[in-house]
Amino acid sequence: MQAYAISPSGAVPQANLVDQAVSHLAAAGLTIKLDRTALKRVQRFAGTDLDRIACFARAAKQKAPIIMITRGGYGITRLLPELDYQALAASDKAWVGFSDFTAFQLAMLARAKAVTWSGPALIEDFGKVQASEIDENTRDVFFEAMRGELEVVGFEWKGPSAYRGLEATGTLWGGNLSVLCSLMGSPYFPKVKGGILMLEEVGDHPYRLERWLTQLLHAGVLDQQKAVLLGGFNQYKLVDHDAGFDMPAVVKWLRSRTKTPIIQGLPFGHGMTKLTLPHGAKVSMVLQGKTAFIVLPHSH
Amino acid sequence: MQAYAISPSGAVPQANLVDQAVSHLAAAGLTIKLDRTALKRVQRFAGTDLDRIACFARAAKQKAPIIMITRGGYGITRLLPELDYQALAASDKAWVGFSDFTAFQLAMLARAKAVTWSGPALIEDFGKVQASEIDENTRDVFFEAMRGELEVVGFEWKGPSAYRGLEATGTLWGGNLSVLCSLMGSPYFPKVKGGILMLEEVGDHPYRLERWLTQLLHAGVLDQQKAVLLGGFNQYKLVDHDAGFDMPAVVKWLRSRTKTPIIQGLPFGHGMTKLTLPHGAKVSMVLQGKTAFIVLPHSH
Repeated sequence: MQAYAISPSGAVPQANLVDQAVSHLAAAGLTIKLDRTALKRVQRFAGTDLDRIACFARAAKQKAPIIMITRGGYGITRLLPELDYQALAASDKAWVGFSDFTAFQLAMLARAKAVTWSGPALIEDFGKVQASEIDENTRDVFFEAMRGELEVVGFEWKGPSAYRGLEATGTLWGGNLSVLCSLMGSPYFPKVKGGILMLEEVGDHPYRLERWLTQLLHAGVLDQQKAVLLGGFNQYKLVDHDAGFDMPAVVKWLRSRTKTPIIQGLPFGHGMTKLTLPHGAKVSMVLQGKTAFIVLPHSH
Repeated sequence: MQAYAISPSGAVPQANLVDQAVSHLAAAGLTIKLDRTALKRVQRFAGTDLDRIACFARAAKQKAPIIMITRGGYGITRLLPELDYQALAASDKAWVGFSDFTAFQLAMLARAKAVTWSGPALIEDFGKVQASEIDENTRDVFFEAMRGELEVVGFEWKGPSAYRGLEATGTLWGGNLSVLCSLMGSPYFPKVKGGILMLEEVGDHPYRLERWLTQLLHAGVLDQQKAVLLGGFNQYKLVDHDAGFDMPAVVKWLRSRTKTPIIQGLPFGHGMTKLTLPHGAKVSMVLQGKTAFIVLPHSH
């Protein structure tokens, strides 16, 4: 398999992290070609806005069927009005990424009804000194998905026992919570009804997580979904002032405000096992015993 | 003058901070009565949701014409669907505050077209050991405004010289940037066209400030205003990775994306001189030489 890697967001801090990822992926059977501005830096960004806009167009035109990102960070939001979503969707590439890449994925869904892939990034998931440091599940599911062989994923879910047996079919969408909320009110936020919304965030205090989740609640987005899947919400720091306020309190409060099931345990987020899932595709989900299954459409 | 103080957001960390503020304000001629749950704590909040919903209603019914907050923090967003905006607006009180209070002010404008006051909070602005530590301008403008004597405020503005002579009349609105953006897409975000939007934020990295400002840009909010007034954006920490990216870069980029004048220097924010201004009222602004003047309506 072949992939093309772009840097649409933050600058790569050290080129050797990309080298390590390229090397480990090559050993696993995936050859990576780096876009020509993938290692560029302008302030905190991986190149100028024009560089990063152009990297999407170059990725759509080259031969490899898979487009990966070197890393997330911040930078896609400001490019959104300049991307040609119809052309990028027509390229029929498998666009893969997460974190800041969520902005691109949501815009592709909103503007071109295009399916992209929520999945790993080169540095975060494969930029390790030793191949043994790579999360096997992250790698295996990613490879299966890219080979078109991924039919179903399963994971241990958490939530009230009343959710048991829940079945839902709808558009799978979402990603990074703060990036997703930063598109609300704009033309790049997709209007998904009856969907399955997945969310993750890193490094933000639970009061901020709650404020964003409340934004989705007040905007009617949560009530319009068949299910919400919570991935990783980690690497935040509590303070004495919280006095018992933490993510469990947030989830409990949220469940009291919407009838939409809020299901925890999705392996998706920063610094953890990360499934590769088709963003914008219609999937089926079932909570069977302790396991949640997500069934992918045949076309992917 | 008399005021009634509520805690609709975060718990008061130390009661003596409120005592100090009450004492200094009394000496200056403003008697404060504390709401009965103003010093309560439930987790990080100043009471349960019901306590904090009820404090708004109690404030509307008591006699003092001015309602102040003990402090900001976080907590109003989750109460928004439960407040009776028509009744609170009909009370004709002068509701004063900032930071998390922005959520209430925006909702009052969106749901009841009500004018509130963007201004000081007890602890932040008056909770000092010595009266001499209180910012005189913050105090004097607040007292003038509450006496109904504030007709015009002036401050040294910053921005391109092309802005000189700018005159604008429109609804003054805004406040804390992250709180304001967290209402986008919800029924609590007012639709203000031809307005003068004021923004401030504390402790957030410029990339986040830019992401929020970009949200306002992409949603069309910036283009719909006659002017944007930037207050304090402070107490954030840059990292090596920023490599020159900072608030000036954000403002420069933003100015390249909207024709709406982005004017800096508004004395409003955290840990700095804070004007008291009528949120939701029609004001006139003129940039005369180095000074920006905001002329308040006669009715306030």
